[in-house]
Amino acid sequence: TAPGYAPSLRSRLPLVAFLLETIFILLFVFFVKIEQPEQIDREYDSKLFISSYAEFQDIHVMIFMGFGFLAIFLLRYGFSGSGFNVLLAAMAIQWAVLMNEIHISMKSMIEAELCAASALVAMGAVHGKTNPVQLLLMALVEVTGFVVNQWILRTLFRADPVYSIMLLHVFGALFGVMVSWVLYREGIEPVHEKEKTDRKTGLFAMFGTLFLWMFWPSFNSALVRDHKWERGLKLTVIYGTYLSLAVSVVMAMSVSMLTSAKGKMNMVYVQSSALSGGVAIGVAMTAVHTPWIAMTIGFCASLLSALGFRYMKNHMLFAFECHDTCSVLNVHAVPGILGWFALLFLRLASDESTIAVQFAVYHICVLLITACMSLVMGTATGPTTLIHIWRPQQDRKCFDDQAFWEVKGFVHLHHFKYVTTP
Amino acid sequence: TAPGYAPSLRSRLPLVAFLLETIFILLFVFFVKIEQPEQIDREYDSKLFISSYAEFQDIHVMIFMGFGFLAIFLLRYGFSGSGFNVLLAAMAIQWAVLMNEIHISMKSMIEAELCAASALVAMGAVHGKTNPVQLLLMALVEVTGFVVNQWILRTLFRADPVYSIMLLHVFGALFGVMVSWVLYREGIEPVHEKEKTDRKTGLFAMFGTLFLWMFWPSFNSALVRDHKWERGLKLTVIYGTYLSLAVSVVMAMSVSMLTSAKGKMNMVYVQSSALSGGVAIGVAMTAVHTPWIAMTIGFCASLLSALGFRYMKNHMLFAFECHDTCSVLNVHAVPGILGWFALLFLRLASDESTIAVQFAVYHICVLLITACMSLVMGTATGPTTLIHIWRPQQDRKCFDDQAFWEVKGFVHLHHFKYVTTP
Amino acid sequence: TAPGYAPSLRSRLPLVAFLLETIFILLFVFFVKIEQPEQIDREYDSKLFISSYAEFQDIHVMIFMGFGFLAIFLLRYGFSGSGFNVLLAAMAIQWAVLMNEIHISMKSMIEAELCAASALVAMGAVHGKTNPVQLLLMALVEVTGFVVNQWILRTLFRADPVYSIMLLHVFGALFGVMVSWVLYREGIEPVHEKEKTDRKTGLFAMFGTLFLWMFWPSFNSALVRDHKWERGLKLTVIYGTYLSLAVSVVMAMSVSMLTSAKGKMNMVYVQSSALSGGVAIGVAMTAVHTPWIAMTIGFCASLLSALGFRYMKNHMLFAFECHDTCSVLNVHAVPGILGWFALLFLRLASDESTIAVQFAVYHICVLLITACMSLVMGTATGPTTLIHIWRPQQDRKCFDDQAFWEVKGFVHLHHFKYVTTP
Repeated sequence: TAPGYAPSLRSRLPLVAFLLETIFILLFVFFVKIEQPEQIDREYDSKLFISSYAEFQDIHVMIFMGFGFLAIFLLRYGFSGSGFNVLLAAMAIQWAVLMNEIHISMKSMIEAELCAASALVAMGAVHGKTNPVQLLLMALVEVTGFVVNQWILRTLFRADPVYSIMLLHVFGALFGVMVSWVLYREGIEPVHEKEKTDRKTGLFAMFGTLFLWMFWPSFNSALVRDHKWERGLKLTVIYGTYLSLAVSVVMAMSVSMLTSAKGKMNMVYVQSSALSGGVAIGVAMTAVHTPWIAMTIGFCASLLSALGFRYMKNHMLFAFECHDTCSVLNVHAVPGILGWFALLFLRLASDESTIAVQFAVYHICVLLITACMSLVMGTATGPTTLIHIWRPQQDRKCFDDQAFWEVKGFVHLHHFKYVTTP
Repeated sequence: TAPGYAPSLRSRLPLVAFLLETIFILLFVFFVKIEQPEQIDREYDSKLFISSYAEFQDIHVMIFMGFGFLAIFLLRYGFSGSGFNVLLAAMAIQWAVLMNEIHISMKSMIEAELCAASALVAMGAVHGKTNPVQLLLMALVEVTGFVVNQWILRTLFRADPVYSIMLLHVFGALFGVMVSWVLYREGIEPVHEKEKTDRKTGLFAMFGTLFLWMFWPSFNSALVRDHKWERGLKLTVIYGTYLSLAVSVVMAMSVSMLTSAKGKMNMVYVQSSALSGGVAIGVAMTAVHTPWIAMTIGFCASLLSALGFRYMKNHMLFAFECHDTCSVLNVHAVPGILGWFALLFLRLASDESTIAVQFAVYHICVLLITACMSLVMGTATGPTTLIHIWRPQQDRKCFDDQAFWEVKGFVHLHHFKYVTTP
Repeated sequence: TAPGYAPSLRSRLPLVAFLLETIFILLFVFFVKIEQPEQIDREYDSKLFISSYAEFQDIHVMIFMGFGFLAIFLLRYGFSGSGFNVLLAAMAIQWAVLMNEIHISMKSMIEAELCAASALVAMGAVHGKTNPVQLLLMALVEVTGFVVNQWILRTLFRADPVYSIMLLHVFGALFGVMVSWVLYREGIEPVHEKEKTDRKTGLFAMFGTLFLWMFWPSFNSALVRDHKWERGLKLTVIYGTYLSLAVSVVMAMSVSMLTSAKGKMNMVYVQSSALSGGVAIGVAMTAVHTPWIAMTIGFCASLLSALGFRYMKNHMLFAFECHDTCSVLNVHAVPGILGWFALLFLRLASDESTIAVQFAVYHICVLLITACMSLVMGTATGPTTLIHIWRPQQDRKCFDDQAFWEVKGFVHLHHFKYVTTP
């Protein structure tokens, strides 16, 4: 690799993508079929379809728009942030459809998008420090690990499918942080000159944040229909998520102002902490039956997350040599674990004592297995993506679109043969 | 307060927000319950839910995305415009839920969002000249006033609930203009140096405008289901709003070009006037049964609104010393009153003469009460928010994010203890 | 017209728009009525309405948000790109409602939006080189031609209505390219200095692209309900479009990197090619029954489209003197024709031989008629819009907002009488 230029991925990314797509299409030929709606009661199916498709679209917007634009607060990383998000999500979804279910239905598509979400959370930790081939491999391993983890929880621990999939935040965040820890670079310390933000990128990130924030009730409630308590719970989850997020955003601004020496809010911190209420309530939602509990969970999650931004993010960087670009540890892992505690506490408070102990043991095991699984797989993924064959970018090209994109210029610019000889 | 810096809100905003949130959560503990769906016919409820949730999401997007980004045409006010919008809306909704109904349902959530909308309209008039604590207090008073006004109209005048809530535009705009009149500052006259726009902020505002414009049919029709004519009217409202807005946007561009000396359109004026058709038809909708009447209302509303931008906005500033940042008087109050006239005229044209006089008197009373209520409450709110304890920003920090936000810099910048001693 | 300034449209655009709107409203008075829902089975209608309105909103977002922001990758053309898009779409929809059906219903509104989409595709080819009056006339002619073409296909060839409306991509693109060919200007060759892009406009265009990309399943499936196979096909179309687009976006990035000398992706090309999978599957969808066929079509469409950007776009410019701003030939025409081939091939493969020949002849006629119709009408429209009375802008004002918009300045700037004499 020439010292002046970023290493070109021209011989890597297209090849990997072609290969993967060809393999995916071949696997689809043999294994994937569309669910026949004739098998189900027609009247019921029709109503279910209408509702499912609208919810699917809400989640679809969150995955491709929300996560994509949330990550572009970085001044010079807009194209990569939104572009690689789409690339990864599109691949992860195809892979998740293959891993999850053989019959395509609205439900299997929603599950595939949630699996992709866990990969995007993981990507948040390594944004700006990895190239798209590395991200692609990481995403496929992450989705595999997450699906296997779900399978273990569902079969061995008979965990509620909705609960096991909502652990995506904890799994994704811990996975991403471990990959980031393995990929740690001396060169970006103490602060990389390109890791900064400005007015315009802050507003773009606001879009992403708002789309995530607004549609989060759909994100949490989409799979609840399969539950035994059904409709009542679904509505409770929607109202709870909504109120939790409303409290969360107010607290995020307050704490951000309170912890700043000059009394000024930080847009990046506010945007991220505002979402923590949705993460926490997502994990705890099956036990939350009154609005005020949801609001209290949102209150605590936002408080923890905003304090984490102020104190934990840099501590992670300097004490543990782990750089976490989007601070997924504060936005996804910590509120997720808070939600887990809330669920444990609410269940223990409502159940009798004999079952309670049993539930607590089972509940602790679920978190431990998820955490171990993600930590081990994240650590193992790091070296695979680190190897020189994938041409990692140089330190000074981190957080910069220029390594992968034509960021500026005339629309026809690179066709110079025409331009020079008209 | 040091002369060089904006007064810090570090000791004000977090305290007020903490207190309010704690009070809200406590009130929710005792007074708010989730509506039990078992009480209603299950089949009907299921269909109603599906439709309600989709409409709720449309309105949700309008409140948080539409209003938020509409206000950021100001060059240096993007973070505040979108950030304070979310803060206020989240607070106003919690307060409106508490004031409106004790049982949370989709309908009560939609009503809460519409109440929040009226507070956001009021905020449009004072944007850039008030700090977030002042905005927060103003929003809570405005929502209180609006709910009380609705209660008066519904109980004393037996007004149609849908009609009384659609007066939100008139109420919010007059309220906001009065607050702005009380808060008038000499220092921002004739034109504040920071009250300007550019290409990029114009495009961000275009987003907000389009989200409002596109989902306005849902905004107007969301509560129509409760009406006695039901389905037929709901569809008529949707088609009418849609066509009214289509005419409105064409006229907004034409009039903006016609009234400019150089024949150039002004993006800010076009964006605002394009929405006036939706406001006017929203007030008149229960009497509009054919598409061409809707289109004519859109035509007139846009004409009035665009002329108002050209001639009334500055006249208001210099003759009445009332600065109206987003020109809510032209976008919400004038088209709202036009819609009120259209409703009066259409009802009088269709009814017999004896009832007609009675209707006219009742109808005029409704507007007068709403106008008085909002003007008086707005004037009364001004001094409360003006007092020095809330630390109003200096004149030269108006229309500027820097007073409240870290607008630029490294993502880790303010953690200098780490940066200096790695 | 003074040489230093762009010719003012002050005496043209408002007049044309006023006139057209007045004519439209008059025509609506006499000819357009709202469909009475009482005529239909109430229960069925209710479900249909809920689903239709959600799909209508998805398409609504695509037309006004998606197409509008897709076109603003040009550095200095953001206001015009998004503003004229709304102007044209609003006019085209009113005209299409008048041409299509006398009774307004959800179905007729969706059809009107799809007709507007074909006009917006045509506009993509001439963006930046025409003024809004020219665009308006072009759009009305285009919609007329497209509706007539549909009528011919449906009555003479008994073509499936869904299939005939999905040819909108081919019709619009060829129409636009021919208009652009007639309007060709020497002055913008080889590359116009203002036809360039940067980081921020690339991100705005990413919004438009994502909204189109995300809601494309609704775009393709919205009218499928009228089909004899109904529900099953509708779901198959949704899944197929979704998977086709997922493959398409991965391939767009890969090919864009592969065909660049430096191995860097071009954002504009990626955004456009990513959508080609949706176009191709839209034409072929009635014959695609398995996911892998949809993915293969997306694969091929994206490959062709991305190669077209690299090789065909400039060839068109220099060999045929045809400048295609948004490269609609590669994004809409080529994938559309690919979809046509796929449909032909899939039908031939599944049918018996005797009907096959008949189908092939009929199928080829459909494409030929559509192509001829659009080519002839496009060529004929060019001269009409070229004439001096519409004041075409100068070459050096191409791709520039300044010809039509106040792009910068104080919010009150053009009211100088107040500013100078407070």
